[in-house]
Amino acid sequence: MGNIGIGFDIMGLAIEQPGDEVIARKSNTPGVRITKITGAQGKLPVEPHLNTAGVAVQRLLAHLDDASSGIELEIHKKMPINSGLGSSAASAAAATLAASELLRTGMSKRDLLPFAWEGEKIASGGRQGDNIVPSLLGGINLIRDNETMDIHRLHVPRGIYIAVVHPQMEIGTREARALLSATVPMDVHVQHNANLAAFVLGMFKGDLGLVGRSLKDEVVEPQRAALIPGFYQVKEAALTEGALGCSISGAGPSVFAFCANSLSAENAGNAMQKAFAQHGLESKLYLSPINQEGAVIC
Amino acid sequence: MGNIGIGFDIMGLAIEQPGDEVIARKSNTPGVRITKITGAQGKLPVEPHLNTAGVAVQRLLAHLDDASSGIELEIHKKMPINSGLGSSAASAAAATLAASELLRTGMSKRDLLPFAWEGEKIASGGRQGDNIVPSLLGGINLIRDNETMDIHRLHVPRGIYIAVVHPQMEIGTREARALLSATVPMDVHVQHNANLAAFVLGMFKGDLGLVGRSLKDEVVEPQRAALIPGFYQVKEAALTEGALGCSISGAGPSVFAFCANSLSAENAGNAMQKAFAQHGLESKLYLSPINQEGAVIC
Repeated sequence: MGNIGIGFDIMGLAIEQPGDEVIARKSNTPGVRITKITGAQGKLPVEPHLNTAGVAVQRLLAHLDDASSGIELEIHKKMPINSGLGSSAASAAAATLAASELLRTGMSKRDLLPFAWEGEKIASGGRQGDNIVPSLLGGINLIRDNETMDIHRLHVPRGIYIAVVHPQMEIGTREARALLSATVPMDVHVQHNANLAAFVLGMFKGDLGLVGRSLKDEVVEPQRAALIPGFYQVKEAALTEGALGCSISGAGPSVFAFCANSLSAENAGNAMQKAFAQHGLESKLYLSPINQEGAVIC
Repeated sequence: MGNIGIGFDIMGLAIEQPGDEVIARKSNTPGVRITKITGAQGKLPVEPHLNTAGVAVQRLLAHLDDASSGIELEIHKKMPINSGLGSSAASAAAATLAASELLRTGMSKRDLLPFAWEGEKIASGGRQGDNIVPSLLGGINLIRDNETMDIHRLHVPRGIYIAVVHPQMEIGTREARALLSATVPMDVHVQHNANLAAFVLGMFKGDLGLVGRSLKDEVVEPQRAALIPGFYQVKEAALTEGALGCSISGAGPSVFAFCANSLSAENAGNAMQKAFAQHGLESKLYLSPINQEGAVIC
C-alpha cells in the first residue's frame, strides 16, 4: 500500500493479504520464461522482459553472472490489478525471492531488493520504491532516496490495524499520475511538511492522537478524489467509525483506513463498504495489521 | 533558530547563547510600560503595544483579568536584530516568564506559551511558532499546527552541537519572505518530504548519518542564498569540516552548522567565519548544544 496518504511516493506499508504467489522451477533452457499467469484475465504480458516478475529475475541472473540457469515462473495473481495495492510490485518481490531460493544464492531480502526494484520499474514507469520495499521486506517504510535505496522502517505502535476497501473498478497509475499538478502551493507544502513530520514522530512515540491529526493528504488526495465515486463519503464513514486517518491507497481506487485496533478497522471497513455500495460500487474488504515479514517462501 | 533548513516555518531549536534579558518590576501605574531598552540602537519601539515583549505581557494581564497591576519592563537586547536568530521571540519569551514570576501566577511555561506567541506575532507578522516555542520551552521542536499550538519536542541524539555564525549585516524577515516563490515544484516537494521524514527518524534513532543525508533545504535556501554574500562558500566550508548539515538560520543572514559533536562544531564555525571574511564580512560565532531549558529566571 503506497503513499499512506501523508507519504506520497516516499512511504508504503505491507498488509497480510491479498498477496501474489509465484512458483519458480529450474529448466534446461537458459534464461527466464513465464509459463503461466493465472488471475490476470490476460492483462499481463508473458514476455519476461515486459513483466515485473520476469525482469526482476532476469536482473538477478545478470547480477549473478549466470547465463546458464533456466528459470520458469508461474505467476498466480491473487491481487487485483490497477487497484492501488501495488500488485505489480508484489509479483516482482515474490519472483525475486523464489528465484533466489531456487538458485540457493544465500542472499538476504535486503540484498535482493535492487533486482525486485528493477522489475517494478517496468510497471510503474518510475523509480518510487513505496510499493516494492514493503512488498519484499514488510513493515512501514520511508524511502528517503530511490537512487541509493536509502530506506528506513518506521516504528509501528501496538495495535495499529489497516482496513483496505477495494471497489470493483480500475485506475491506472500513469493516468492518476498524469492528473497531478506540477506544483504545490507553498502554504500547502509547509502544512504538509508539518503533518508528515508529526506522523513520523507520532508513530515513534506511539502517540495515536498525533498520528490521527497528522495523517492527512491535502496535496494529492484532492486531485485524485474525483476518480473514485463517493470517495469523500467513504472517508467520512471511516472517520466517523473512529479511524485515525483515511485516504487513497497508492493511485487508487482502493481506500484505506488507518486504525488504532482491529475492532476499529473492522467497523471502519464495513462502513466504507456501505458507502461505496451507496455509489453503486461493490467492493472487497481486507483487514490486516501491518505485515512485518514481506515476501515469504511457502 | 527557526527553520533548521529542513523545517521551514515548522521546526526550531534553542541554543545557549546569545539570549535577551528582561527585567520586570511592579509599578503603581496599571498596565505595561517599557522603561528601558538597551542594545537595540533605538531600533525597537518602546510603545508596549508595538513591542513583542510588551504585547506578550499585555496579553498575559488580559488573560489574568488583571486591570490593576502595573508592570515595568527593562529589555536588554543581547541578541542581534534581523539576524535570523529569533531575537523578537526571545524578548517575548523572557518578558512573559518574568511577568509571570513577578505576579506569582504559578503558570507553567507551556501555559504561558500563548501569550509569548501573541507577542511574537507583532514582529513576525505571521503565526509561525518556530522561534517562540524553543525560545520559551527550549529543545528542538516541531510545530504541527500554529492555531492549536500542537507542538512536539524531538529527541536529541547525544553530542549534537550547533555552530551559528552571524555575519555583520541585517536581513528583515518580511523582506526574505517576500522573495519566496508561491509554489514548490511537485518533485522538489516530494524529495523535501522524504528528507524531512528521514530527519525526524534519524533524530529519534540517533542515526547521525541519516540526519546528515536528510538535513537539506532545496526549497527555501536556494531562494534566499543570494541575500547572504558567500553563502555557498560558507556552507561548503562547514561541510568540509564534517558538519552534518548547514543552512540558513531563520530568514538569515546567520548560517548554522548542525554537528555531531562540539569539536566538529568548533571546526565548522571557524571555517565558516573564514569564508565570510573572504567575502568582506566580519562575523560572530556561537557554539552551543541544543538548549533544553528555554527561558529561565535569573
